[in-house]
Amino acid sequence: MVNETQHTCSASSSSKSDGGSSSGSESSKDSSRCSTPVLDADRHERLREKMRRRQDSGDKWFSLEFFPPRTANAAVNLISRFDRMGAGGPLFIDVTWHPAGDPGSDKETSSMIIANTAVNYCGLETILHMTCCNQTKDDITGHLQKAKRLGLKNIMALRGDPVGEEWEEEVDGFNYAIDLVKHIRNEFDDYFDICVAGYPTGHPEAESYEADLRHLKEKVFAGADFIITQLFFRSETFLKFMKDCQAIGISCPIIPGIFPIQGYHSLRQLVKLSKLEVPQEIKDVIEPIKDNDAAIRNYGVELAVSMCRELLDSGVVHGLHFYTLNREVATTEVLKRLGIWKEDPRRPLPWAVSAHPKRRVEDVRPIFWASRPKSYIYRTQEWDDFPNGRWGNSSSPAFGELKDYYLFYLKSKSPREELLKMWGEELTGEESVFEVFTCYITGEPNKNGYKVTCMPWNDDPLATETNLLKEQLEKVNRRGILTINSQPNINGKPSTDPIVGWGPSGGYVFQKAYLEFFTSSEIVTALLRVLKKYELRVNYHIVNVKGQNITNAPDLQPNAVTWGIFPGREIIQPTVVDPVSFLSWKDEAFALWIEQWAKLYEEESPSRMIIQYIHDNYYLVNLVDNDFPLENCLWQVVDDTFELLN
Amino acid sequence: MVNETQHTCSASSSSKSDGGSSSGSESSKDSSRCSTPVLDADRHERLREKMRRRQDSGDKWFSLEFFPPRTANAAVNLISRFDRMGAGGPLFIDVTWHPAGDPGSDKETSSMIIANTAVNYCGLETILHMTCCNQTKDDITGHLQKAKRLGLKNIMALRGDPVGEEWEEEVDGFNYAIDLVKHIRNEFDDYFDICVAGYPTGHPEAESYEADLRHLKEKVFAGADFIITQLFFRSETFLKFMKDCQAIGISCPIIPGIFPIQGYHSLRQLVKLSKLEVPQEIKDVIEPIKDNDAAIRNYGVELAVSMCRELLDSGVVHGLHFYTLNREVATTEVLKRLGIWKEDPRRPLPWAVSAHPKRRVEDVRPIFWASRPKSYIYRTQEWDDFPNGRWGNSSSPAFGELKDYYLFYLKSKSPREELLKMWGEELTGEESVFEVFTCYITGEPNKNGYKVTCMPWNDDPLATETNLLKEQLEKVNRRGILTINSQPNINGKPSTDPIVGWGPSGGYVFQKAYLEFFTSSEIVTALLRVLKKYELRVNYHIVNVKGQNITNAPDLQPNAVTWGIFPGREIIQPTVVDPVSFLSWKDEAFALWIEQWAKLYEEESPSRMIIQYIHDNYYLVNLVDNDFPLENCLWQVVDDTFELLN
Repeated sequence: MVNETQHTCSASSSSKSDGGSSSGSESSKDSSRCSTPVLDADRHERLREKMRRRQDSGDKWFSLEFFPPRTANAAVNLISRFDRMGAGGPLFIDVTWHPAGDPGSDKETSSMIIANTAVNYCGLETILHMTCCNQTKDDITGHLQKAKRLGLKNIMALRGDPVGEEWEEEVDGFNYAIDLVKHIRNEFDDYFDICVAGYPTGHPEAESYEADLRHLKEKVFAGADFIITQLFFRSETFLKFMKDCQAIGISCPIIPGIFPIQGYHSLRQLVKLSKLEVPQEIKDVIEPIKDNDAAIRNYGVELAVSMCRELLDSGVVHGLHFYTLNREVATTEVLKRLGIWKEDPRRPLPWAVSAHPKRRVEDVRPIFWASRPKSYIYRTQEWDDFPNGRWGNSSSPAFGELKDYYLFYLKSKSPREELLKMWGEELTGEESVFEVFTCYITGEPNKNGYKVTCMPWNDDPLATETNLLKEQLEKVNRRGILTINSQPNINGKPSTDPIVGWGPSGGYVFQKAYLEFFTSSEIVTALLRVLKKYELRVNYHIVNVKGQNITNAPDLQPNAVTWGIFPGREIIQPTVVDPVSFLSWKDEAFALWIEQWAKLYEEESPSRMIIQYIHDNYYLVNLVDNDFPLENCLWQVVDDTFELLN
Repeated sequence: MVNETQHTCSASSSSKSDGGSSSGSESSKDSSRCSTPVLDADRHERLREKMRRRQDSGDKWFSLEFFPPRTANAAVNLISRFDRMGAGGPLFIDVTWHPAGDPGSDKETSSMIIANTAVNYCGLETILHMTCCNQTKDDITGHLQKAKRLGLKNIMALRGDPVGEEWEEEVDGFNYAIDLVKHIRNEFDDYFDICVAGYPTGHPEAESYEADLRHLKEKVFAGADFIITQLFFRSETFLKFMKDCQAIGISCPIIPGIFPIQGYHSLRQLVKLSKLEVPQEIKDVIEPIKDNDAAIRNYGVELAVSMCRELLDSGVVHGLHFYTLNREVATTEVLKRLGIWKEDPRRPLPWAVSAHPKRRVEDVRPIFWASRPKSYIYRTQEWDDFPNGRWGNSSSPAFGELKDYYLFYLKSKSPREELLKMWGEELTGEESVFEVFTCYITGEPNKNGYKVTCMPWNDDPLATETNLLKEQLEKVNRRGILTINSQPNINGKPSTDPIVGWGPSGGYVFQKAYLEFFTSSEIVTALLRVLKKYELRVNYHIVNVKGQNITNAPDLQPNAVTWGIFPGREIIQPTVVDPVSFLSWKDEAFALWIEQWAKLYEEESPSRMIIQYIHDNYYLVNLVDNDFPLENCLWQVVDDTFELLN
């Protein structure tokens, strides 16, 4: 990781002066085709436009730098770190280029694939680093084309480390970052936002500080949109650098690179590689505590906070770039203390959006994948037309089949041993499965004392919203109504509601009550008799693994179950129950019994056969209570069913 | 008119056994392109499918026959009769072919144009009659192509009256209705639904009753979808005819033609032309009262009601076809007494839909044309893509300019003299204009004792819904806020609500409060100051005739102001306030001051100059209160404005 830092610490410029209009018109073109308008400007603007808007509004921001992991397991962890740190609201993240790690390949640990995952699956605006020395133009063009295809829109253009001791210019090759900037602009016009690196104390190889500033100016004038700087230890260093840049005509955003000191050794190594000088006052503090990691980290946080405060207070710094070293605690702590970590980020839509440009007008999804958004994105990655909330017709785009259950970004965060502890080393019957579902709902430990914090259909603990239904969910799971998805009805709560709110403020959000579960054919038989009484009020879809399908839904119409009304906007209906996509979801939902649960056990083992039995014989049921202003009747439906069975 | 009756009384058959699926899939294809799904099956089904569905559901229906008018004024009246009688819910209307009246031309009195108006502007499913004798194939093909282009989907195929005394077969020409049926099927495949005429007592020129039945069977087997019969005087006549038809294998719907006797002379002439025998018991009643029109009409209604009851009670009759002779009272009376006139027809959408096939997925319109739906349809007739609720973008379809204020279907129903009485023979100042607006709102007579029942922007008295706002509207109009459109806020009323309900039952409808008015620049100045206080809650657009435009709307986004939530459906948002289309509406709204009002007066007259002054100097304002669950704040906005002015 430490050998990343040099290219890592970088910076870029020259915010093209196109207003919001160009992307605006492009977006409206899209939305004329589509159901409901996307209202989050963040999804439409280019990164340089977002920066400018934040600067204009005085809204301070931060960004986070990560390097690609070394192993597949580390990739799983990094992705869940993206999700957690993404929740704090970074303006963007960036992923360093790792020349030794086959950075442009399809390996799950490559820079390209990690950046792709961040954009597509975690919904993060992402900058992909790219170094150019020792590479042919064709290689570089290939990488850039691939990045574009994957939905990446921002490149940090770097020289990279020359191979060998002494570096020599190559004729016709890429010798400097500026060559890469020019190449991107030549080959891809204005498609990418380009960032370049700035060195507050001058690049170590530059003839002089002034000469380095001139190089930086050339990079900006060659087409870079903004600058991120190498780390530094004093705010004065950055502020002087910024002034000097502006003095020679660099007018693009310059973002300070912040490195919270997290340990003695990482600091030493970093400093050695980047040829920086640690100020004496810092050395004086650190040396005595060099074996006390916690103390050094606390000091690092203090130091970063006070330096960041000085920068922000200067009035010329609008955003801060953090070198996270793939760690969470120190950076999060600094951001929280600075007050720029978003504790309650406003959700533009009730589900986590993807940042792929082709999905930026996506504003409706079936409810089924609510807990598996990455799987939904994976299965719809080939769609070239979003939003696509209307699957209920002949022009339905096909869902990709989900066979790759072990793709790192779809995989459970928990290893097999942990899953066995949660879901049972040995199952004794269907009831022991009911018990697992019940423990997941209640949050109580199972009979072996382990908490069930995830399920095959949900890799995270129960959502806050679902907590509202906890009591009823517990009761029904205990009796074999194995719930995997639900939402309460909502009759016009403010869009700023901390639990169910989404979208811009001043609006109202609504929901129809929804309940989805697996259950036995005996219960289904009784349920169908009960549902007759609710014919006009409750829509249902009931299907088994073979695809036998019972429904009272009119034709193949989707049923909107979440919608919002906002000032000056059209209606947004981001979540639907769609009969056609339900059949695709059904395949995935049943397969998860086998792929994630049954396969934990030996073939032919009783535990495995119990799960196999459920998979083969149970039905997947979804219920919608259409009468959202009244009290949710779905619990009554379930109660009536149990009563009928008694 | 009487010479129409022979072709008029006609009938057709062979309901193709294609289920709802074909039209269903076609419709969903359309809706995948579009905003919100249209939910009224009536708009998607072919006429023969509608008949079948009504028959299957046991839902009795009626249809109405009209003939083309002789004069432009009569056309204006006929169109408003279509609107009034359309409200009773006929399954279709038909327009007879008037060979002497240039029936296929673009004249406003032609059969073609009247049928076009019924379909496009009155939203009525319409059958166009067409006769074939003495016409070339090319003529007929030309008429049919034009009919198709105009959105007509149903043809009543008739022979027509031969010219001259003795009729001879033409080689290669059209000699019988069956030739026309075959021609339509050959040239237009299954595009048209075809109706043919049946003669319950046999065609007067047929060799025999039996021979006539065989001819009818041939017409049906040649491709007719259903039969409408010539009039008759006894239910037994029809029921026997129907049985005889079925006995020889005619299985398509056979619809009895009902002729309520409306006067002595019209009966005599009709009977003479159609060579029918009036039964003695009817003659016996009529002869003694032949000079008493009212008595004859009462008797005609009684007779029709009792015959219709017998037909409906027979169990084999599902629909009744009425020869209205373009009159309203007798037919409406019969229908009301039979209980099949819809007193409160369910509205599929809050505005009157058009029946043109290309508009069948139209489900969103700007609110501005709420009182001028025909003008809206006219100005968007060239659009080839519906719905088109998103005008707020670069791909906006252009609105056609409205220059033809005197097109008969756009014209005021009231003649100039009446308008002068309502709006003032002589205006004395802006206040006398305020007075006209106020009288229109209150329904009170003006100072000359005339009620103001229409305005240039609204050819009908105040809508029931607007009545809810009457008191406030009166107050503000009196003070120079000249309202032309408004709606109250609605926070989830049942979709079956008699005043504001629309769409299928079991749903909920919502509205944001809306107010649109002309007012002086002094009031606008004060209003703008007041609106600052309501910045986040109220959206406004304020524009003058020159197009100076003041708004706080985000970008060019439309604001949904009417929407509905229904069981098992997506959200419908049929009405929007759209900034782009508002500028097209503005041109029309200002022009109406001149075209409909100023031009009533002499050029240079003081009255005309007052209207011209208002046209040149006033602003058109629209306000939306986004906070629909709270009490409408727009009245407070106006009150605050007046207070500021005082």
